[in-house]
Amino acid sequence: MLSRFLPKDCNFFDLFDKQAKYAADAAAYFQDLVTQGKLDEIAIQKMKDIEHQGDEVAHEIINRLNKTFITPFDREDIHFLAKELDDIIDMIHTITNRLKVYKLEKVDKNLVEFAEVIRKSVQAVGCAVRGMRNMKQTKDVLNACVEVNSLENIGDFMRDKMLAELFEAAKNDPILVIKWKEIYQDAETVLDVCEDVAHVVESILVKNA
Amino acid sequence: MLSRFLPKDCNFFDLFDKQAKYAADAAAYFQDLVTQGKLDEIAIQKMKDIEHQGDEVAHEIINRLNKTFITPFDREDIHFLAKELDDIIDMIHTITNRLKVYKLEKVDKNLVEFAEVIRKSVQAVGCAVRGMRNMKQTKDVLNACVEVNSLENIGDFMRDKMLAELFEAAKNDPILVIKWKEIYQDAETVLDVCEDVAHVVESILVKNA
Amino acid sequence: MLSRFLPKDCNFFDLFDKQAKYAADAAAYFQDLVTQGKLDEIAIQKMKDIEHQGDEVAHEIINRLNKTFITPFDREDIHFLAKELDDIIDMIHTITNRLKVYKLEKVDKNLVEFAEVIRKSVQAVGCAVRGMRNMKQTKDVLNACVEVNSLENIGDFMRDKMLAELFEAAKNDPILVIKWKEIYQDAETVLDVCEDVAHVVESILVKNA
Repeated sequence: MLSRFLPKDCNFFDLFDKQAKYAADAAAYFQDLVTQGKLDEIAIQKMKDIEHQGDEVAHEIINRLNKTFITPFDREDIHFLAKELDDIIDMIHTITNRLKVYKLEKVDKNLVEFAEVIRKSVQAVGCAVRGMRNMKQTKDVLNACVEVNSLENIGDFMRDKMLAELFEAAKNDPILVIKWKEIYQDAETVLDVCEDVAHVVESILVKNA
Repeated sequence: MLSRFLPKDCNFFDLFDKQAKYAADAAAYFQDLVTQGKLDEIAIQKMKDIEHQGDEVAHEIINRLNKTFITPFDREDIHFLAKELDDIIDMIHTITNRLKVYKLEKVDKNLVEFAEVIRKSVQAVGCAVRGMRNMKQTKDVLNACVEVNSLENIGDFMRDKMLAELFEAAKNDPILVIKWKEIYQDAETVLDVCEDVAHVVESILVKNA
Repeated sequence: MLSRFLPKDCNFFDLFDKQAKYAADAAAYFQDLVTQGKLDEIAIQKMKDIEHQGDEVAHEIINRLNKTFITPFDREDIHFLAKELDDIIDMIHTITNRLKVYKLEKVDKNLVEFAEVIRKSVQAVGCAVRGMRNMKQTKDVLNACVEVNSLENIGDFMRDKMLAELFEAAKNDPILVIKWKEIYQDAETVLDVCEDVAHVVESILVKNA
């Protein structure tokens, strides 16, 4: 219980939980959007709002970090964690935005599949982040990290399969290839960033073991 | 006035000003080039020279950092600032080079628009960097940072609009889509990096407040 | 000889040598593959195995770093070096995988040329990394770093030339442009990462001079 060393008004754990919560919101809403093929202005705005809220928490973490002398774990880990959680939300927002800009508004079964893996991974990330509060009970955290790693492997495999199929199916429509190739690669990048978060959480556990 | 604590021959502020100046030179010259559609070998070489000069200042900052015990602000911030200012110049150089390699030598009104926003943003970055010398008079610095953030938002919007139009206008010319899509995304990346610089400058101010 | 200050079971230099060795293995095997146009399942699996072994060394370095109080050089440099060496291997693995996914299985003379430059650069990186053991005999290390920088410049030039030719030669086959453009840019990225490694090694030398 490192958190007891911290003054109440400066609780990094609460802020990270909040940030992980916005990441989970973004991932869940993304799954909704792509499953329903509902990409109107309201949906885009709602995703933008989530991204903006996540951004504010990230800034709050950095600001507090800059004003705080004693931190619950290494300063650079706090910085990196805040940045990476922010990147998860940013990337999900970017994909949503791109679907709109590229006019890819119909349901795509590949992206539905990716959205499910992303939601699971971001959920596991949230579990890992929450678990950092109690660094002596690491089993759940480590399980969550293992899940994030395994979902990243699945994502790699999915992206490769989808790209191979895309190059076949759309070989007469290069513009479509350009658009979906970027979307699938972005979707896999979300899982990469989740894995980076899992690695830093594992690092923090090792250091505080 | 933190700068008085530093020996004259080791002034990081002077070096950062110099680096910001090269970034401003690159942005101004880029605006010239794309406005006049003048991308001959001489222009490419001149941009390469600016990039090379910027590179040398970046290396000098890192070298001095490695040999200096007392720094005017956190070592990692100095490192990050030098790297990001270098990235601004690199990215502008990369775009210029790509225009040549991709034979996109005619004036493009979108890129002219981007070049203007980039020039303004790099100028505001220079203002923020110069302002760090006097960390008690933060108003101008903070205003410059706000401007950089706002120009980044404008850039996001511009890129989205341009990409949507490009996919319509060039739907029968996928090669052209490939080329301009990368250029517009690169142009927006310059503004992202400027925003990163603004964030680190704000961080430095908070820590030294 | 900083290495004598370290307990035998905690030798970062040995681990970095091991990591650099896997990077060299990846680069050499990559050259074999693209020279022979032999991209079957066995080849893909072998490259994946190298990547996996490299990954394990990277994790071991980070784990030991997290458990070690006294390190032979700055903690952040150890972290960065492990990450960048890992990125070299990852990137070579990614390109190999992409060639398979994109069905680019025939010998391409451009990629053969790149593979040779990559092999040389990764070899020089290995030489620089090995040389860090003895920070007083820096001549070989600095020579290796100069070679890495010069190979990166050559790579930039090669990529530009290859892209310009590709846009001409395949102007009626945009799908082919999409595929090879990404491969050539990835190949050049390997050289960029090698250059980053060279820079951090130079930094470490300066700090410990």
